[in-house]
Amino acid sequence: MSTRAPRLTLDEYERGVRAADRGVLARAVTLVESHHAADAAIARELLARLLPATGGARRIGITGVPGVGKSTFIDELGMRLTAQGKRVAVLAIDPTSQLSGGSILGDKTRMQRLSLEPAAFIRPSPSGLTPGGVARRTRETMLLCEAAGFDVILVETVGVGQGETAVADMVDCFLVLALPGAGDELQGIKKGVFELADLIAVNKADSDPGKARIALSDLKAALRYLPRRHRVWPPRAVAVSGLTGAGLDELWAAIEEHHAALSASGDLATLRADQQRIWMWTLIRERLEAVFRAHPGVAAELARLEAAVARGAVTSATAADELLGLFRPEV
Amino acid sequence: MSTRAPRLTLDEYERGVRAADRGVLARAVTLVESHHAADAAIARELLARLLPATGGARRIGITGVPGVGKSTFIDELGMRLTAQGKRVAVLAIDPTSQLSGGSILGDKTRMQRLSLEPAAFIRPSPSGLTPGGVARRTRETMLLCEAAGFDVILVETVGVGQGETAVADMVDCFLVLALPGAGDELQGIKKGVFELADLIAVNKADSDPGKARIALSDLKAALRYLPRRHRVWPPRAVAVSGLTGAGLDELWAAIEEHHAALSASGDLATLRADQQRIWMWTLIRERLEAVFRAHPGVAAELARLEAAVARGAVTSATAADELLGLFRPEV
Repeated sequence: MSTRAPRLTLDEYERGVRAADRGVLARAVTLVESHHAADAAIARELLARLLPATGGARRIGITGVPGVGKSTFIDELGMRLTAQGKRVAVLAIDPTSQLSGGSILGDKTRMQRLSLEPAAFIRPSPSGLTPGGVARRTRETMLLCEAAGFDVILVETVGVGQGETAVADMVDCFLVLALPGAGDELQGIKKGVFELADLIAVNKADSDPGKARIALSDLKAALRYLPRRHRVWPPRAVAVSGLTGAGLDELWAAIEEHHAALSASGDLATLRADQQRIWMWTLIRERLEAVFRAHPGVAAELARLEAAVARGAVTSATAADELLGLFRPEV
Repeated sequence: MSTRAPRLTLDEYERGVRAADRGVLARAVTLVESHHAADAAIARELLARLLPATGGARRIGITGVPGVGKSTFIDELGMRLTAQGKRVAVLAIDPTSQLSGGSILGDKTRMQRLSLEPAAFIRPSPSGLTPGGVARRTRETMLLCEAAGFDVILVETVGVGQGETAVADMVDCFLVLALPGAGDELQGIKKGVFELADLIAVNKADSDPGKARIALSDLKAALRYLPRRHRVWPPRAVAVSGLTGAGLDELWAAIEEHHAALSASGDLATLRADQQRIWMWTLIRERLEAVFRAHPGVAAELARLEAAVARGAVTSATAADELLGLFRPEV
């Protein structure tokens, strides 16, 4: 990190990424992640040039809380895919990395076999704490990987913060890993995550097949009550084992089926267009709010008014009007 | 509407609302709903004066798609509550009213008995289409009703648009009405609504008790998989009949239990404080976005850039940067 390689030219970045040169790709990702204004300008131009070459990969999101066996699962899934001749990129988002001072996902040794596989590219993303911060760089890294010809992009997030929503909003297919827990409850499914899932995989099904079977059956019943994310795809639950590989072929077949269904119906094109548009608005809203909060008049009154609103001393509408008046008298 | 009663003075509004004068309360609600700047200033001051007298009611949200039997249900529940000596306000939000040119919830004859009951106050809210528009006036009407001493406020929304989220964000307890449908599926539960529910009532349980029993049992299994809205309250499902009144006492007992649990844990106070703060931010963000969209430079380029983003010709980040640059060169 401290001894940084000299910057490449725009042409060198573009040629290297298109040629799937892993070293250049890694440096292009670093460029995209950079906070320097000069880097941002080059990154923007690089992405503009590469954009026509993007969009060709299967974009698959994977989430699950720590302990669910994500690394072992991805290692095994990735090895199976590369064995089929596919090139696989694993991008990991860790919304906690800025809090803990280091990414818990940063350790490539988590995926021991895949990290040595030439057809795989593993890249953890340091990320900010806002939805935009979480996902901005990973989205652009995904585009770089697509321009480099990767067939499958696995975007992994740990099940904390807003990571899942951010990832669900950038992929074609969202997979939630869960565990059969104590009793017949499932563990590791967070608020809101259920409704994002296209597929739910009960992992470690090998460790207690009976328990996994019950969990799976209850889960299938539960899924009937959840509204569909896509008209053409009822979410599906499967039992897998990242350790033994059991169920992984069925899971991949389901992912293929999901892709075929969404492609045929036109939902995939709509989904991607919507994701891009929504993402543009997320970035705009985030920036508008940041500018608002940074305004000296607003900054001086915000804490006081927010506290007054919280304790019911001022109505929310009055406080909002007052702050907006400070921000822009003409609003 | 066309022959409007002369405006009252601020003191008259305040005294009338505090004295629970229904005529004055109705006019105060009209004041709060008014789009006139002069009215808005009086409304704001009125709310500021009444605010210390608010917060005393049970705030209960009720949703369910058309056909689920909401009116009959609320009529029966309201009559039971007034029979217990409680004063009940029913505020109805209809996000479709601006689309259809008239509120489908505006007809008081929907609640035939309750509309004749002196201890009840029924008020439909015409509403805008934005989350803020949906809920802004209803929130303030709720405060007026609390200042007028109502014990229970039922905030009703039809299951379309963003009505449910807006209502869930302003009440203590959120109740979803559903129907046992064809097969063993539930009908009338919309995407995202499941996770907002503190209570789910399978209505019209009298029409096919066997089907209702199956639906209820499956629903209870499904609820185990949903994350809790409150640490201290596992969401609960009950069977009711708005027509016969069966199950309504049990349902009200569950609402009381929910209130007791959230009060004892401190979650109720936190919930309300959070709702007020979040609501302030919703209003601010909505206004910032409206100002952004109305900016001549942004307005001139927005459609073109949004379309380019949707078809993948420009990255979301680049388009966002460009629009923000047009809005405020210094952003």
